Amino acid sequence: MNFKSIKFNRSNIEIIDQRLLPKKIKKRKIKNSDGAYAAIKKMMVRGAPLIGITAAFGFYLALKNRDSKFSLMDYMQKVKNKIISARPTAYNIESAMNSIYKVFLLNKEDLSLNELKDKVYKEAVNIYQEDVKKCKNIGIYMNKYIGDGYNILTHCNAGALATSQYGTALSGIYIAGERNKKIHVWVDETRPWLQGARLTAWELKKNSISSTLIVDSAAGSLIKKGIIDMIIVGADRIAANGDVANKIGTYQLSVLAKEHDIPFFVAAPTTTIDYSLKSGSDIEIEERGDNEIKYINGDIITLEDQNCYNPVFDVTPYKNITEIISERGKEKFNEKAG
Amino acid sequence: MNFKSIKFNRSNIEIIDQRLLPKKIKKRKIKNSDGAYAAIKKMMVRGAPLIGITAAFGFYLALKNRDSKFSLMDYMQKVKNKIISARPTAYNIESAMNSIYKVFLLNKEDLSLNELKDKVYKEAVNIYQEDVKKCKNIGIYMNKYIGDGYNILTHCNAGALATSQYGTALSGIYIAGERNKKIHVWVDETRPWLQGARLTAWELKKNSISSTLIVDSAAGSLIKKGIIDMIIVGADRIAANGDVANKIGTYQLSVLAKEHDIPFFVAAPTTTIDYSLKSGSDIEIEERGDNEIKYINGDIITLEDQNCYNPVFDVTPYKNITEIISERGKEKFNEKAG
Repeated sequence: MNFKSIKFNRSNIEIIDQRLLPKKIKKRKIKNSDGAYAAIKKMMVRGAPLIGITAAFGFYLALKNRDSKFSLMDYMQKVKNKIISARPTAYNIESAMNSIYKVFLLNKEDLSLNELKDKVYKEAVNIYQEDVKKCKNIGIYMNKYIGDGYNILTHCNAGALATSQYGTALSGIYIAGERNKKIHVWVDETRPWLQGARLTAWELKKNSISSTLIVDSAAGSLIKKGIIDMIIVGADRIAANGDVANKIGTYQLSVLAKEHDIPFFVAAPTTTIDYSLKSGSDIEIEERGDNEIKYINGDIITLEDQNCYNPVFDVTPYKNITEIISERGKEKFNEKAG
Repeated sequence: MNFKSIKFNRSNIEIIDQRLLPKKIKKRKIKNSDGAYAAIKKMMVRGAPLIGITAAFGFYLALKNRDSKFSLMDYMQKVKNKIISARPTAYNIESAMNSIYKVFLLNKEDLSLNELKDKVYKEAVNIYQEDVKKCKNIGIYMNKYIGDGYNILTHCNAGALATSQYGTALSGIYIAGERNKKIHVWVDETRPWLQGARLTAWELKKNSISSTLIVDSAAGSLIKKGIIDMIIVGADRIAANGDVANKIGTYQLSVLAKEHDIPFFVAAPTTTIDYSLKSGSDIEIEERGDNEIKYINGDIITLEDQNCYNPVFDVTPYKNITEIISERGKEKFNEKAG
């Protein structure tokens, strides 16, 4: 990978402000948990695995900035809950908070404050390193399904910018590229936030993968013409029955894939799977403000007082998905019922 | 209708520059056929019926500006061919040119130049007036399918701005509104040109129809949730078997309608039907430049050198369409084969 989505040390994390890509590569240093919360909430960082990692370091920074154990338990619980509340759909924030909070709880009595900080920092680093491994393994498994010469359609950005490295949906594409398969990626621009046009186009170019940008509405026409060999997307939360919440527009791609009998893959680490939810209908879908639709680069595209509806994720039923690939390979869920 | 998409007299036509809506209502006077060609080509006017009407007046203005019959036949044939070449997909330009050219041919020998100008002007006016009637009748027929309280999804702009008056897809909605049905319209923003966000939102507001703007990718999610009662779109060219070319993204809406068993209507005047083409695969699909995707309001949203693909129409097979409604009511085409 020719860039790093996140860097960290014991006093801060450094992120790329993804709101400004690809026009500006602006790096920001985050020194406390409020900064991590704001970076997630305001989408300076986005992508389920990357916001999980940012959340973990945010939790560590809250602890690092304390100078006594006085009411530490209460304080860290509040920090955890606040960070989880930054964005509701991606499960990886909760996964990361559950891991790091457990390390905190298990050690808070026995260790000195400094030792505790060290322990929690190491867990944040571990969450990061585990994500690197998970993403790479997802790519190794995904690559088996990617034929030489394939035209692959992807939606949103589930690449290196959305994770520690490699990405989820894009990981297999990078691995295929490293192994000299000739791959072409069709990039849905992904309105309203334009993750495809801004982020996926940028990182594919950085990593020398050829791509073509299309508007989201053109996907059906390309698939109908037989141009697309497979679709690969990421996930924000996967329910216990295999239903997948992912970027708005994913569901309709799955319907088109079914209609035209092309493979539809979801690539996500196990940290995205929420076994506490029976099905996709239990997943909370974040709705963001009208201005994300009404303004592009600060310029209005419709009426000032136009009513909008902006759900930023949708749910794809497991039956529409060819395979869900995690770092363990094919994930097995309940039987695909009608 | 609370505005006019086009006005005309014997010396010029006046259009609204639709590229600037809804920010600016800029009217432009067109005084010759080159002006009409440029207005169509540059999309100052768009919408299949309206560009047919503009083409007819462009043809008239070419004749009007002549001061002798010297090589008139050659000249007017070139004018006709040039205007037809402005945009390839909408059949209405050809329909209008065929009608007006026939009037020119039939009368060019017998009439004086001034009488000929008068005759051709009257045919352009006739094409306009016929479109008004056709659009109104489409609305009267469409209205029968629109239930009180319906939530209707539309794509692109097939409203008053795309026609003489009333529109095609929106005509039934206006008629339903006049008859006090409570209708809510869900407006696909329609990238890349944002006809939904810019034009449909504007004209629905002007005519007091309530609407909600969504990104094109959100349609599937809304349909899956059961929010949408029916989809109505316009058409740019309909082949002899009922296959419909319309704005990019129409095809995938038809697949979603089929998947969820909701009615999918196409509303278009008979001037959109090209009986010379056997099926939709014979329809030429216009591809426009990359910059329509890369720049929004003049500001770039991706990499400077990003490769794009910008087909601006797609083809929906007749079997995916519940009914095609023209000014004659239900249009009948060949049996809906698998």
